[in-house]
Amino acid sequence: MTVAPSQLPIEQNPLSAEELRKIDAYWRACNYLAVGMIYLRDNPLLREPLKPEHVKYRLLGHWGSSPGLSFTYIHLNRLIKKYDLNMIFIAGPGHGAPGVLAPIYLEGTYSEIYPDRSEDEEGMKKFFKQFSFPGGIGSHCTPEMPGSIHEGGELGYSLSHAYGAAFDNPDLIVACVVGDGEAETGALATAWHSNKFLNPIRDGAVLPILHLNGYKIANPTILARIAPEELESLFVGYGYTPYVVECPEGEDVTVSHQKMAAALERCINQIRSIQEEARRTGEAKRPRWPMIILRSPKGWTGPKEVDGHKVEGFWRAHQVPMAEMQSNPHHLKLLEDWMRGYQPEELFDEKGKLIHELKELAPVGHRRMSANPITNGGLVRKELRLPDFRDYAVEVSKPGTTEVEPTRVLANFLRDVMRNNRDNFRLFGPDETASNRLNGVYEVTKKTWMAEFKPEDLDGSELSRDGRVMEMLSEQTLEGWLEGYLLTGRHGLFNTYEAFVHIIDSMFNQHAKWLDVSRHEVPWRVPISSLNILLSSTVWRQDHNGFSHQDPGFIDVVTNKSAEVTRIYLPPDANCLLSVADHCLRSTGYVNVIVADKQKHLAYLTMDEAIKHCSKGIGIWDWASNDDRGVEPDIPDVIMACCGDIATQESLAATAILRQEFPQLKVRFINVVDLFKLQSDTEHPHGLSNRDFDTLFTPDKPVIFNFHGYPWLIHKLAYRRTNQERIHVRGYKEKGNINTPLELAIENQIDRFNLVIDVIDRVPKLQSAAAHAKERMKNQIIENLHYAREHGIDKPEILNWKWS
Amino acid sequence: MTVAPSQLPIEQNPLSAEELRKIDAYWRACNYLAVGMIYLRDNPLLREPLKPEHVKYRLLGHWGSSPGLSFTYIHLNRLIKKYDLNMIFIAGPGHGAPGVLAPIYLEGTYSEIYPDRSEDEEGMKKFFKQFSFPGGIGSHCTPEMPGSIHEGGELGYSLSHAYGAAFDNPDLIVACVVGDGEAETGALATAWHSNKFLNPIRDGAVLPILHLNGYKIANPTILARIAPEELESLFVGYGYTPYVVECPEGEDVTVSHQKMAAALERCINQIRSIQEEARRTGEAKRPRWPMIILRSPKGWTGPKEVDGHKVEGFWRAHQVPMAEMQSNPHHLKLLEDWMRGYQPEELFDEKGKLIHELKELAPVGHRRMSANPITNGGLVRKELRLPDFRDYAVEVSKPGTTEVEPTRVLANFLRDVMRNNRDNFRLFGPDETASNRLNGVYEVTKKTWMAEFKPEDLDGSELSRDGRVMEMLSEQTLEGWLEGYLLTGRHGLFNTYEAFVHIIDSMFNQHAKWLDVSRHEVPWRVPISSLNILLSSTVWRQDHNGFSHQDPGFIDVVTNKSAEVTRIYLPPDANCLLSVADHCLRSTGYVNVIVADKQKHLAYLTMDEAIKHCSKGIGIWDWASNDDRGVEPDIPDVIMACCGDIATQESLAATAILRQEFPQLKVRFINVVDLFKLQSDTEHPHGLSNRDFDTLFTPDKPVIFNFHGYPWLIHKLAYRRTNQERIHVRGYKEKGNINTPLELAIENQIDRFNLVIDVIDRVPKLQSAAAHAKERMKNQIIENLHYAREHGIDKPEILNWKWS
Repeated sequence: MTVAPSQLPIEQNPLSAEELRKIDAYWRACNYLAVGMIYLRDNPLLREPLKPEHVKYRLLGHWGSSPGLSFTYIHLNRLIKKYDLNMIFIAGPGHGAPGVLAPIYLEGTYSEIYPDRSEDEEGMKKFFKQFSFPGGIGSHCTPEMPGSIHEGGELGYSLSHAYGAAFDNPDLIVACVVGDGEAETGALATAWHSNKFLNPIRDGAVLPILHLNGYKIANPTILARIAPEELESLFVGYGYTPYVVECPEGEDVTVSHQKMAAALERCINQIRSIQEEARRTGEAKRPRWPMIILRSPKGWTGPKEVDGHKVEGFWRAHQVPMAEMQSNPHHLKLLEDWMRGYQPEELFDEKGKLIHELKELAPVGHRRMSANPITNGGLVRKELRLPDFRDYAVEVSKPGTTEVEPTRVLANFLRDVMRNNRDNFRLFGPDETASNRLNGVYEVTKKTWMAEFKPEDLDGSELSRDGRVMEMLSEQTLEGWLEGYLLTGRHGLFNTYEAFVHIIDSMFNQHAKWLDVSRHEVPWRVPISSLNILLSSTVWRQDHNGFSHQDPGFIDVVTNKSAEVTRIYLPPDANCLLSVADHCLRSTGYVNVIVADKQKHLAYLTMDEAIKHCSKGIGIWDWASNDDRGVEPDIPDVIMACCGDIATQESLAATAILRQEFPQLKVRFINVVDLFKLQSDTEHPHGLSNRDFDTLFTPDKPVIFNFHGYPWLIHKLAYRRTNQERIHVRGYKEKGNINTPLELAIENQIDRFNLVIDVIDRVPKLQSAAAHAKERMKNQIIENLHYAREHGIDKPEILNWKWS
Repeated sequence: MTVAPSQLPIEQNPLSAEELRKIDAYWRACNYLAVGMIYLRDNPLLREPLKPEHVKYRLLGHWGSSPGLSFTYIHLNRLIKKYDLNMIFIAGPGHGAPGVLAPIYLEGTYSEIYPDRSEDEEGMKKFFKQFSFPGGIGSHCTPEMPGSIHEGGELGYSLSHAYGAAFDNPDLIVACVVGDGEAETGALATAWHSNKFLNPIRDGAVLPILHLNGYKIANPTILARIAPEELESLFVGYGYTPYVVECPEGEDVTVSHQKMAAALERCINQIRSIQEEARRTGEAKRPRWPMIILRSPKGWTGPKEVDGHKVEGFWRAHQVPMAEMQSNPHHLKLLEDWMRGYQPEELFDEKGKLIHELKELAPVGHRRMSANPITNGGLVRKELRLPDFRDYAVEVSKPGTTEVEPTRVLANFLRDVMRNNRDNFRLFGPDETASNRLNGVYEVTKKTWMAEFKPEDLDGSELSRDGRVMEMLSEQTLEGWLEGYLLTGRHGLFNTYEAFVHIIDSMFNQHAKWLDVSRHEVPWRVPISSLNILLSSTVWRQDHNGFSHQDPGFIDVVTNKSAEVTRIYLPPDANCLLSVADHCLRSTGYVNVIVADKQKHLAYLTMDEAIKHCSKGIGIWDWASNDDRGVEPDIPDVIMACCGDIATQESLAATAILRQEFPQLKVRFINVVDLFKLQSDTEHPHGLSNRDFDTLFTPDKPVIFNFHGYPWLIHKLAYRRTNQERIHVRGYKEKGNINTPLELAIENQIDRFNLVIDVIDRVPKLQSAAAHAKERMKNQIIENLHYAREHGIDKPEILNWKWS
């Protein structure tokens, strides 16, 4: 592939005088509305002179990028109409919501969804007042905004969301405005490479529009202050064909309109011809997709100067160009002049509705970007065609005696999920699909790869132009892709290393908030598929990779988000993993986190038992217990509880030792799959009632809880439980270096020997007889550590331990 | 600035035959050691035929990028010697540690620090065995590695660390190898723009070496599979002058050596001439700094094929090219042939030491990159020259009656810190320094800006070529810069929005782990300055920005890391903030998190009181309490506890209401500054003993704890306290949209009215009289919500509330 010239010929002045007049009028209407949203609570059409009481007391919202967003939006509208395009709009600088809300209101969608914000003076007044007003809507492209799949409150994810939406939507064009501030974030800087994963035959297109308005809150942006040649080189380097639309301050806006119209039309035509050629020939090469660099003044068309300071074209236009409207008559006058400058009387009819000739400029029905059904993903979501997960069961004739790699078992199920849902499911992972033992899926679909191929790739690289396993070494891009894919109605699963999922903590937070608001505040949003995150390569098997790879704390972050949208599962074995995965893939509206290691683990439950266990989420394992349940509610001497695969194994091994050492000891063995069972039912819908909790755990017997993650998370969840101080939790406590698995367990005291010591220390009736047993445990620890240091591996009896 | 050609003339074949022979021999020695580390536990010099028992049972480590790392390292050595350079080495692909450990061992540093791993056969055996072996060292560039400031376990931060090290180190060149896998991460993709912040006069240089070895774990890398023209464009676009060193598979390595020698020398000369010119003319323009693109086969010089599969130059070379050494004699033979192919007998003398003529190739003493003192930052760290923070005190004649913006007060102190420490302290923030009210520092130093200037910048952009406020809209880059700056012995503070600090959760985790290991396992590492993070624009004042901007959960992440290295402070007012900041700036070896909002807050304590309060970290505020302390230990009826500025204000306002409603009620008012005081002293060095806790909180009285963050964090910390179930915590529980401040507080029940209700519900003696009071509180809530929805702001009596 050769590097294409960045400037192909563009038609000059494509707009007729009539079109130009109208499109500019439409833009003035948008800008008028944007200012109105930021400032006004009354007198929306300025039908009387502006008075202080018409202005909001608290002025919020971001004027700076609003005009550029509207400008782009309405020029896209022209092309949607002209070519009957299926298009959606993503506003990276979500803070510029007024610039998006305005055209959405003008094209009628807003009033259709929110009838009280009707297309008349009264509705406009409410539309203005609600903006960034208590009880109203936010100043970003929040879930309440029709047509939005990207809030843009936290910056950086617009472009990966855009690509996620475009995958498997061959007719769709995702217009994505990237703010030049946002462009400095890491997430955005690497998301440009998403074009190496977009197939022009089966996927739609993304049209990135880098909006260089030059400034962030109080600083210039980097990309606006490098040489134009550098800037173009950068995007050529990223693999795009950049088209530069320069709209310098002071330029006649009709010239700007002509430039934008021409460049966008060029891009759309290029996209169409790329797709047409690829689809005609069946050959999916990586094209140099077009993109726009729109350089326009910040706060375009706003006040040039306020109190002697430059505003338009400067960072001072970022938020509210001037304030103190109640106390500063000069500012009030400035505002009135500014708004009247848009000539609202020419734009809105007597009732306050956009005049007919302008109304006609917008597309209608589902062609409106604000009414495109895919932006309300649940609407277009097709249920997955799931094979019966029971068919992939591991046979378990006796608990704890067969070893399998649980994620390899899961891969068989996922393989057939992918086989059955070829345009509706993708698997995401940062170069770890094989490492996480999910490579079984390659039997039906490979890894998407639109970059160069080499002959040796045939030997196991598993690449394909039309694969649907998405691998790139950027957790942020993957998470963004998956979110975009789900938000537009599809399904997927993200698998990643447990420690490094923290890279997307913040993205998880934002997505969980989006789901929470959608569920509780936006009744018209139909639930989308859950975001499924599989954490593999977990802490207890990162003994060899060392301390930097050991961090089970992502689930702690998850527990801070709304109980309505968060679910955490730690299946103890392969069959439970299958059952949990099936459940998660069917669910909507959640973030489901599944923690399951990839290495060999014992299988404990038959498929039927696993289903039962996972449905309850927590339960007693009879075969590992020897208390006489049913006779008295609190007959056990001790409860061995556990959550997580390795934690379960060590708890079981400890229980086996206890049986041998103290045959008279009554042990109840409880396994937790669904972590939120530990929370009270008043705090989480999955929480156990106190009564059920006490039935399981007794109200007063010691609980030795072996946990996969940081131990204090259990206390955080269970702090309201009866006599919670008797719950003694072991877990990862930041002790690790290069170890064997057992050594790592011992360092953190989640190992079988330390658990036995914990029991001895906490069960009064063992006190007298226990000194020797404790000594034996300590000796075991010393011996095992010695062996590990000598041989670099654990003893065979540890490696091959089975329940018996 | 024009775009420079990417290929300036390079001297051909700069190495003499003799040099060439030696440098290749040195490289062979490195590669031999790298293989040895991965495979051998005995017979290190192959003085007897290789037997299965010489090989480790568990084969760990990454061969793939090791040869390229050594190759680069030793070519840099040549130039260090030739030009007497002050240079350090950062290995982005830290998994290739064998390729860095090898030259470090060969140049003697390793044995100086770890005498048992001496430069002889016995030492080499230990050196091999320890690698990725239980009780040994990790397979990344961990703190145990001399010369390392970057572990490279989690990928993405090498380049920002490199720039951080170069700032204010004018003589230093930081050679930074960026892996092509790592290059796909967001953090790395945007860190290339760091060159817009490096001043050639006062800063050192960074020489990035993009190591295109083509593959990640099981995938090709993006940058290795785009057209060469695209690749060059990308780096021209990033603002560099790229020099491409192509070392294709099968090329005579002597040719590769010549190319690398020539290109590196060209780069060093270019760096020197850039610096010389800038320093001579005093004009700091942004140069197009050189960089290297090194394309070499993955697993270079290793087995070409194993079992019929391509290995060298393919992803199969990523980790261990072949395994089963104990059971597969063919593999064992392959290994032996491979190792003998490096001709160890020519490289090491009888004792096992590198032969003299090769020894001479490495620099000596502190010129060795592994012994450069700045890589042990504490060694070269200069104490800050701190002004007396008491001089910046806010006058407080009566508690809770004066309002100030605490961070603006802090800014005055920071301003003088920056004035006094012009080459030793920087302030970092993502375009938020002014927004966070820290702009007072601009009086003495501006924001670093090496990109283009415009005339309007003179009106408040606060940019300067030699500013030392670092602003870029990438939390990841800023955090990386600061870490690099601290790790090389300097000081700094990172201020950022509370919600979005989650973007660097993972970086925080990694840095905390680095500090933890350095403190406990690496006695020769001298403590570096603490990483100080100021979280401002906090949840309770993001009412107007809405839900996406509300997340106080970073401190939850912090509490999962080692108690030895983590500190969290929530100063309730400006004087406390000054006292805490002074303490943090003096400290070493920690991550200090300070949570303090930027908006107007009441001041409660005089400077003397603040110092006393912050030194204790927790304490009773007598002036807000009316219990008769001293008479009986548990005389109060209720304890009003609080932590965080807004939480404190609301707790105080509730206490004021209580005094009015229930004059007979005995209230003890406790404020927490140092969050870890709540943990037990057995868990955190700052933790209160149970006895002290009970003295403060009584053993049994109800505690109404108003917390800044997620409420359950308090339960997580305090779960061991006496009768912990009586501690009733309020905090942020994910309830928020567009609100007024009071409305947001009410939604989450941290407001004064709900706190009073909490007291009524929990103090038995209030039960009878309380119904009316409760009603009054509920009415207050309704009234206030109504007012907020109507006016968009809180009532004046709320806005202007003062303690009296």
